[in-house]
Amino acid sequence: MKTKKICLTERQMPTQWYNIVADMPVKPLPPLHPATREPVTKEQMSAIFAEELIDQEFSTERYIEIPEEVQEIYRIWRPAPLVRAYGLERMLDTPAKIYFKNESVSPAGSHKPNTAVPQAYYNYKQGIRHLTTETGAGQWGSAIAFAGQHFGIDVRVFMVKVSYEQKPYRRLMMNTWGAECIASPSTLTASGRAALERDPHCSGSLGLAISEAVEQAVQHPEDTRYCLGSVLNHVLLHQTVIGQEAVVQMELADAEPDVVIGCFGGGSNFAGIGFPFLRKNLTEGKKIRVVAVEPSSCPKLTRGQFRYDFGDVAGFTPLIPMYTLGHDFQPSDIHAGGLRYHGAGAIVSQLLKDGLIEAQSVPQTETMAAGVLFAKAEGIIPAPESTHAIAVAVREALKAREEGAAKTILFNLSGNGVIDLYAYEQYLGGNLRDYIPGDEEIRRSLESLK
Amino acid sequence: MKTKKICLTERQMPTQWYNIVADMPVKPLPPLHPATREPVTKEQMSAIFAEELIDQEFSTERYIEIPEEVQEIYRIWRPAPLVRAYGLERMLDTPAKIYFKNESVSPAGSHKPNTAVPQAYYNYKQGIRHLTTETGAGQWGSAIAFAGQHFGIDVRVFMVKVSYEQKPYRRLMMNTWGAECIASPSTLTASGRAALERDPHCSGSLGLAISEAVEQAVQHPEDTRYCLGSVLNHVLLHQTVIGQEAVVQMELADAEPDVVIGCFGGGSNFAGIGFPFLRKNLTEGKKIRVVAVEPSSCPKLTRGQFRYDFGDVAGFTPLIPMYTLGHDFQPSDIHAGGLRYHGAGAIVSQLLKDGLIEAQSVPQTETMAAGVLFAKAEGIIPAPESTHAIAVAVREALKAREEGAAKTILFNLSGNGVIDLYAYEQYLGGNLRDYIPGDEEIRRSLESLK
Repeated sequence: MKTKKICLTERQMPTQWYNIVADMPVKPLPPLHPATREPVTKEQMSAIFAEELIDQEFSTERYIEIPEEVQEIYRIWRPAPLVRAYGLERMLDTPAKIYFKNESVSPAGSHKPNTAVPQAYYNYKQGIRHLTTETGAGQWGSAIAFAGQHFGIDVRVFMVKVSYEQKPYRRLMMNTWGAECIASPSTLTASGRAALERDPHCSGSLGLAISEAVEQAVQHPEDTRYCLGSVLNHVLLHQTVIGQEAVVQMELADAEPDVVIGCFGGGSNFAGIGFPFLRKNLTEGKKIRVVAVEPSSCPKLTRGQFRYDFGDVAGFTPLIPMYTLGHDFQPSDIHAGGLRYHGAGAIVSQLLKDGLIEAQSVPQTETMAAGVLFAKAEGIIPAPESTHAIAVAVREALKAREEGAAKTILFNLSGNGVIDLYAYEQYLGGNLRDYIPGDEEIRRSLESLK
Repeated sequence: MKTKKICLTERQMPTQWYNIVADMPVKPLPPLHPATREPVTKEQMSAIFAEELIDQEFSTERYIEIPEEVQEIYRIWRPAPLVRAYGLERMLDTPAKIYFKNESVSPAGSHKPNTAVPQAYYNYKQGIRHLTTETGAGQWGSAIAFAGQHFGIDVRVFMVKVSYEQKPYRRLMMNTWGAECIASPSTLTASGRAALERDPHCSGSLGLAISEAVEQAVQHPEDTRYCLGSVLNHVLLHQTVIGQEAVVQMELADAEPDVVIGCFGGGSNFAGIGFPFLRKNLTEGKKIRVVAVEPSSCPKLTRGQFRYDFGDVAGFTPLIPMYTLGHDFQPSDIHAGGLRYHGAGAIVSQLLKDGLIEAQSVPQTETMAAGVLFAKAEGIIPAPESTHAIAVAVREALKAREEGAAKTILFNLSGNGVIDLYAYEQYLGGNLRDYIPGDEEIRRSLESLK
């Protein structure tokens, strides 16, 4: 009998998050206040985020305890299985061993609840009653809706309009858990109204939805805060439960990955799977390749610049040191999945700059083909975002076949595509095209940065 | 630390299905040939079903081996977790312990793959290249699409039109796994055309969709067979992996259920969770209540008659001894979930007749309320079908509170509702009504039986 899933018991679930900042040879640059260009203080951030989350944002401690209240909710679906992709190996006829971490098993269908739950918890602990946030493809919005109601917090989600219209089930999911979901740009905020004035048919962007959500939070400092599903240090921190479990599970499988792969939007699932393995490179002298995979249509890691930029369109957030395409970059809305964000988080950007991680971009017709292959081989229909990681795993497996190398590949299945079947319909119907921005388009977008 | 999920290893997965016929004090009556009214022979059934499935249909062996090829695919998601519903207990403030078996973790999102996989396998082994089937809410169609492609079998699914239109994602799921999905009634079959002639706006029924699928299968005996997702003995047999796992898991939790609850459409998930516990009643003198829950809108167990009836509308199937509302019974299409089937399988019907199991009916506004409560308490959005089981678990838990009794309740979460969020939208928008057929309506429907 060949073991398919390597499962941990609830007692084996990590009780601490891993903070890679402690082990980075070059620490990430600080976020800057947009007006003063001085490092932002915790006090300045406290109008936007819960205090304990800000502490984690700035922390240099290697390990941070996961509160028991958070662990209790994690146990609804965690530990998540590590799966040997025998079916995919067979279909690719590869000597490579392929493993994936299955984060699609959470109630919201993705890795996002790993950070939604602690974010809701720390806000609740501070007495916050309302959370605002944004969502792109809807995975994050669903996750925070799920998490918020566990702690009796009202959640309002601004959802990028193109996704809001393509994915009615995402909104219904949020509603079922009791959250409110609003198409962005909306007329509820000054940022939304300004965008609609410029272009009444604006299909929205993650950066714009962030502006709307932040704007609403700062207007009610007494009981409202904003929260974010990716990019920031504390978000990446929470996701390290993924990789910490996977490290133990790979050991149980008596295997060590040569390459660890995660798709890349703002960096949270990539960091989640990657950082605990990267720790082995930084502290144990291992040489595991850690690869971030972004869509060719939004190539900040492979074609952007490393510089300070805003996290949102309107310029409400601090300036973050990031690989960016410029916060005005409007990703093509023909793209099937999330990952439509102009920048990368500070930690990931620093790691990439220092050559400690790799980045690749893949066009969506290739990722969706890999997704359909995976659905047939392994049974699970992957989220369009996750198909980016699968596509590079397939590339690596085919290279191993060419080279006759018995490589071990690990990727993160960040979510399932059950609510994203619209993207599969587009793909299977031959209606998906690849969009790759021209050099001139990227140059212009970056030039607009001061 | 309170353990939330009781998980088994892959090595602890059952390697045999449990056939309750071996332990039944009164064996089920045989199916009859509609023309001769003589018991159907295996030969007569072989134009419709794969031979090994027919052998299982008639088997009286207590245990039947699960082929390794089937176990291998089961391991994609099995063993499924048994979960302690601490959140629900807290919300209901009940002294009862509530457990649920989580069958929503399969790639298709329900228990249906438990039988889809062996059905596809035995057909494949016999050289069959095409399978036809029907689906109501879409859970079964998705499952057989998932299973068929593992063995290179083409699958054509006739989907009840009302669901086809309400649930486009179900069709897309089948398409992604490579299956064809057709709205029933269709113009592809004589049964479909006849129904459309009677009523061009006919919203379909499971019985009618069965007629269409059987009709197409028998026209190509050389390489096509039909398959069914519920009702028949072999289908119920395959589902007993659920209850067999749950028996071991309850022992590991050091608990024994006072009541075991499953929702009821054709009987497969109910049998799956119930029969292995019923075995304890039949062979070990235990007194566990085993409760089938049907919708008030389609109350064959609680208000139907025990008699021979067809499994389909057109009268293609053998006559089955069943609790039935009459095969012409047209369930209200305002109902949110599946479970819209006029009859119950032979085994379940005999067990009910002999007082060995119980049946209850619940109106859908009560079940959907229980579903929303469960989604908030336990995080998982349940399938509308599964909310019927949850509703009775809630009734039992509230009764325990009234009585101050420390009862143990187990129910089967047969699937998740991620693709059925339409039903939640209807419910949350206040647009779901209860429909309870009148005595006269049921009498007329039964009278039409010869």
